[in-house]
Parts: sequence; C-alpha cells; structure tokens
Amino acid sequence: MVKTKKYILAKHFIGEPKLTDFKLVEEELPKLEEGEILCESLWLSVDPYMRKYTDFQMEGTVMPGGVVARIAESRDPEFPKGRYVAAYFGWRTRTIYNTREENKSIYPKPYLLPDFGDLPLSLGLGVLGMPGITANFGFLEVCEPQPGETVVVNGAAGAVGSIVGQIAKIVGCRVIGFAGSDAKVKWLKEKLRFDAAYNYKTTKISDALREAAPKGVDCFFDNVGGAFSNEVFRRMNTKGRVCVCGAIAGYNAGFENVLVPMVQPYILSKELKVQGFIVWNHASRWLQAIQENMRWINEGKIVSEETITEGFENAPKAFIGMLRGDNIGKAVVQI
Amino acid sequence: MVKTKKYILAKHFIGEPKLTDFKLVEEELPKLEEGEILCESLWLSVDPYMRKYTDFQMEGTVMPGGVVARIAESRDPEFPKGRYVAAYFGWRTRTIYNTREENKSIYPKPYLLPDFGDLPLSLGLGVLGMPGITANFGFLEVCEPQPGETVVVNGAAGAVGSIVGQIAKIVGCRVIGFAGSDAKVKWLKEKLRFDAAYNYKTTKISDALREAAPKGVDCFFDNVGGAFSNEVFRRMNTKGRVCVCGAIAGYNAGFENVLVPMVQPYILSKELKVQGFIVWNHASRWLQAIQENMRWINEGKIVSEETITEGFENAPKAFIGMLRGDNIGKAVVQI
Repeated sequence: MVKTKKYILAKHFIGEPKLTDFKLVEEELPKLEEGEILCESLWLSVDPYMRKYTDFQMEGTVMPGGVVARIAESRDPEFPKGRYVAAYFGWRTRTIYNTREENKSIYPKPYLLPDFGDLPLSLGLGVLGMPGITANFGFLEVCEPQPGETVVVNGAAGAVGSIVGQIAKIVGCRVIGFAGSDAKVKWLKEKLRFDAAYNYKTTKISDALREAAPKGVDCFFDNVGGAFSNEVFRRMNTKGRVCVCGAIAGYNAGFENVLVPMVQPYILSKELKVQGFIVWNHASRWLQAIQENMRWINEGKIVSEETITEGFENAPKAFIGMLRGDNIGKAVVQI
Repeated sequence: MVKTKKYILAKHFIGEPKLTDFKLVEEELPKLEEGEILCESLWLSVDPYMRKYTDFQMEGTVMPGGVVARIAESRDPEFPKGRYVAAYFGWRTRTIYNTREENKSIYPKPYLLPDFGDLPLSLGLGVLGMPGITANFGFLEVCEPQPGETVVVNGAAGAVGSIVGQIAKIVGCRVIGFAGSDAKVKWLKEKLRFDAAYNYKTTKISDALREAAPKGVDCFFDNVGGAFSNEVFRRMNTKGRVCVCGAIAGYNAGFENVLVPMVQPYILSKELKVQGFIVWNHASRWLQAIQENMRWINEGKIVSEETITEGFENAPKAFIGMLRGDNIGKAVVQI
C-alpha cells in the first residue's frame, strides 16, 4: 500500500493563521484503476489566495494549493510515467488522479508541464505557473499598458507583483513598486530595475506617488485594496486602468472590517476602468502565457526569484511566513 | 443697455445648500461685437453634478449649469437670430457669447438645437440633452447590456436614471429601479414599466435584490455610490458591468466621510468591470444620442417627465429640492 501525507484545515483561521489551525494526517492510497495516475508531489505552492479560499471550505478538508508532481505510476498513456504535472491537488505528498473525471472545481485540470529546458521545475508554481500567468494576462489584458505610461504595483516583491513590474518594463512603462521591507525595495530597484520602489510601512503612499509619479498614474496593478488603493486612485490619470488581482488588506482582517472612503468619486471623475481578474477563468490559454514568460526569462528580461522552505512538514510555517511578507519572489515548499 | 440677472455662489455649500449660499446680482451687457450672439435663457437646468462642481469654483463666481436659450441678436451667420442653443452659460438670464472663442471649459461648446418637432424645448436640458446623452452612452457603452440580462439603476426616477431604465427595456433587459419615495416607485412601475422598483428609504436593498434579482445582477448603472453600491456589488454575476455615473451618497456628506467596506473583494471575485462615465468627454457625438433618444420618444418607447419650477428667482429652491429628491424626472426652471 502507498501512503500519503496531507495537511487538513483543522480550524478556520481567525485573523492570522496559527500552526494549530493545521493538522497533518496520513492516508493509504488504493491500487490504480484504469485512467488513473499516481503523482508524487515535488513542490508545493503557498499563495495569498489560499487565506481567503479556506473561509469557504469545511474544517477537516485538505488545504488548497498547487503542486508540481512527478507521475510515479500511470494507467493513462496520455500522462506517461516520469513526466511532470502541475495540479491543484492541495497540500498532499501523493495523489491518485483520475484523468477521465470531469473537472468540477474552480481550478484548472492537472496538465503536463511543457519542457522547461534548464529552468527549475518549481517555476511551474511561479513565473511559469499560476502567478506568472496572472501577471501576464492580468496586467497586459486588463491594464492595457502603453509604452511611456506610468504603472504602480503593490505586493511588488511577491510572486505576481514582481513579474508584473518586469513585464511593464518590457512594454516600455515606468514602474513604481511598493513592498514591505527595505530589503525588498533594494531588490526591486537593483535586481528587477524598477524605476522607483518604496517601503509602504515607512513611507506615506501619497508622498511616494507625488515624488515618483509627478504626471499621475496610468495603470495600477492592485494586490492589496483598501486604503492603499484609494491613495493610488487619487493620483490616477483620466482613463486610467486598474487590475484588481488581490485584496490582501482584508485577508486577515476580514473584508467587512476594512472601512475606507467610497471609491466611486475617483472612478467617476477620471473615468477609470477598474476590473477584477481571476486567473482560473483563463485556464484554456495558460500555455500561451507560460511560453511567453519562458521566452522572456531565456532572453534575460525576467528575473525570477524563489523563497524555498524545505520539508512538507514546514508547509504551514511557509504559508504563515508568506502572509507576513517574509518571502522575496515566489514562496514554495520543497517536499 | 441690456441687463442680465445672474446667481453667484456666495458661499461654498456646507452639507445641504442653503438659500443664503446664493446671491442674485444684476449686470449690464456691452454692445455685440463681430462674431458674438446675445442669448436669452428660456430654461435653466439643475442637476446633481453641480453640487460637487461648486466645491472647485471660487465664491463670487456664477453658478454652473446648462440653459436652453433663444438667440435674440446675432453677429454670426452660423448662429442666426431666432434659433435656439443649448449652452453651459450658468445661472444667467442673458449671455453674450463669442462663437469664435476657443472652448477652454470642460463643458461642450454652445450648439444649435436640432428641430425637436412638437417636443418642448426644455427637453434639450433633459432627455434630448446632457442627462439623456449620459443615459444613452453611459448605459449602452459602459454596461454593454445584452437582451435578457438584469439591470439595476438607482436614482431611478431622476433625469438620468429614468432614461437608463427605459433604454434597458428597449434593449430587452429586466430592470430594477431604486428611488426615494413611494410615488416615484409607482411612477417607475406604472408609467415607465420597470419590472421592479423599490423605495430605498423603506426597503432593505439586499432584501429587494434577493426578491427581484434571484439570478443576480448583470449591469448596474450607479448614480449613488457608497453603501448602496456595495449591496449591489454583492449580488452581481461574474463579468458584470458597472457604470459609475454619479456619487450622490457623498455630495452633501463629503466623500471622505462616507466610509464603506472595501469594494475590491467584490470586483475581484466576480471579475466585475467598474467604469466611470463623464459625459463631457463624449461631446463630439452628442447629436447622435439626441437623435436616437428623439426617435425613441416619437416611437413611444421613452416617456419623459419634467418637474418644472417657475421663475429664475426660484432657481436655488429648485436646486435644493432636486438634491432632496423632490423631482420626478428632469428638474428644470422656466425663466
């Protein structure tokens, strides 16, 4: 019998998640049936969205999350043994997946990773996976950036924000990033070549924008929401575009508790377009964005950094740390 | 010498405007120069936007607003004596306008009214003017309504909202209106044939929407903002569209003082598109919307109602009443 370990949500998070909210359990897996594959997780992703999604799942169910896994056994020739898949199996070390089953979840179906060449497989959870695809489609298709425009991104040192800023540079925009530590700010300016970057914990956002965006902001890629967004809205130019990609300001606090001045006057007076982006709704085109991001990495135009936590057991710690902003770039767990 | 009367903003409004905030003054007009026309105002418009715009103008300057005026004298053959113009002259009984002057204001240049046939000239300030154009372009181009979709409009008995709802019916949508009195609700349902209408002062918005929009809301034409919008956002369908056309919730209270839960989670989770609409930015196409609305009136598909105040001296009273919601349909002053 093959065994798997999995982390379940033992208790719904109240505020910041605690180690005692998670529970590690072992499970035995049955024999493979026709059309099934056995996947061994190599890398596990921890992402901000999970903080919110757990609110809607029952206690006792497995923590949500993407993995990169190796196909250890296969009874489907289209998913051969030895190939790698990216899949939303959750926090599990091994998973049996029936490839013929209809996908009833909001997440994309497991898919074979394309050939990454010399690039590490873990990128399949970052710039060559969900966060990189979010950055690519969300920024290019919702913000519709034009060369010479000014772009603001918050959560700029995170998995999505760091790629958004670099794609903005590729397009020919001026990029201003906001992150939560001086080390991140230094990294954004020196490694990722952002035109300006600020520590939002020690800088007034309005002052930073007055300094770095004297002609106003054209595109805003928003991972945070709340009071932060209002400050950027205030400085946006007529017909500016805002991609709403995350709402971290309310993930631990609870959305209902984050009270801010009404945003409609900003949206109205500047004819802003403010649009939400959910990457799952664009699953049919994922490989397109992966190929484009891979080309940019190979051309040296995108730098991708990861914060790696070793050991499946440490996944909760990695998740809590990521929510605190401990990571630079993509946070992953090596299983 | 020709004399004119005008109302100036004597004091910036604090909260609701008061009669003492306005001052009536008389002024003598000089002789007409080449390229000038003398216009006698027949109808004056009072609209919600003026409440906000006065915040940005100096005390002692004329109240902003549109008029329909007759050309009493002309030294420009393209604006012949006896024709009618729609113009943003402000609260004035007579105005000399130099047709060769470059337009430096945000408002459209004065334009000759097309032939209204049997329809009253005052409609040039309502359904055949700014509010009707706002309803037409704002709703059709920002909300992109499809037949069978569910539309919510607030301020529904006002100059813009009442036209939006009727255009939505023309498109084949199901229309839910919110207004501030039982008389208005009755008018919306019986005269304008809204599918549902509610008095927002006596009904919980969430209850009303649960009843009237059991399948969710696809398009939201928002004249109010603030807490009202959050309630509608909550019930919107994936890929719903919101036209932000007004923010009455904050006009008297002050935008900074209207605190509501952050809206980003709603925009994000449903991939909403929330877009501001300022009619002045679409001035080059005004006649197109006027012609279309006129055709719909003549076909009996749009009913247009006006709340008329007699006498230029009563303009402040009409303005204050309109902000209180005393009007049904378009509020105008007959000079």
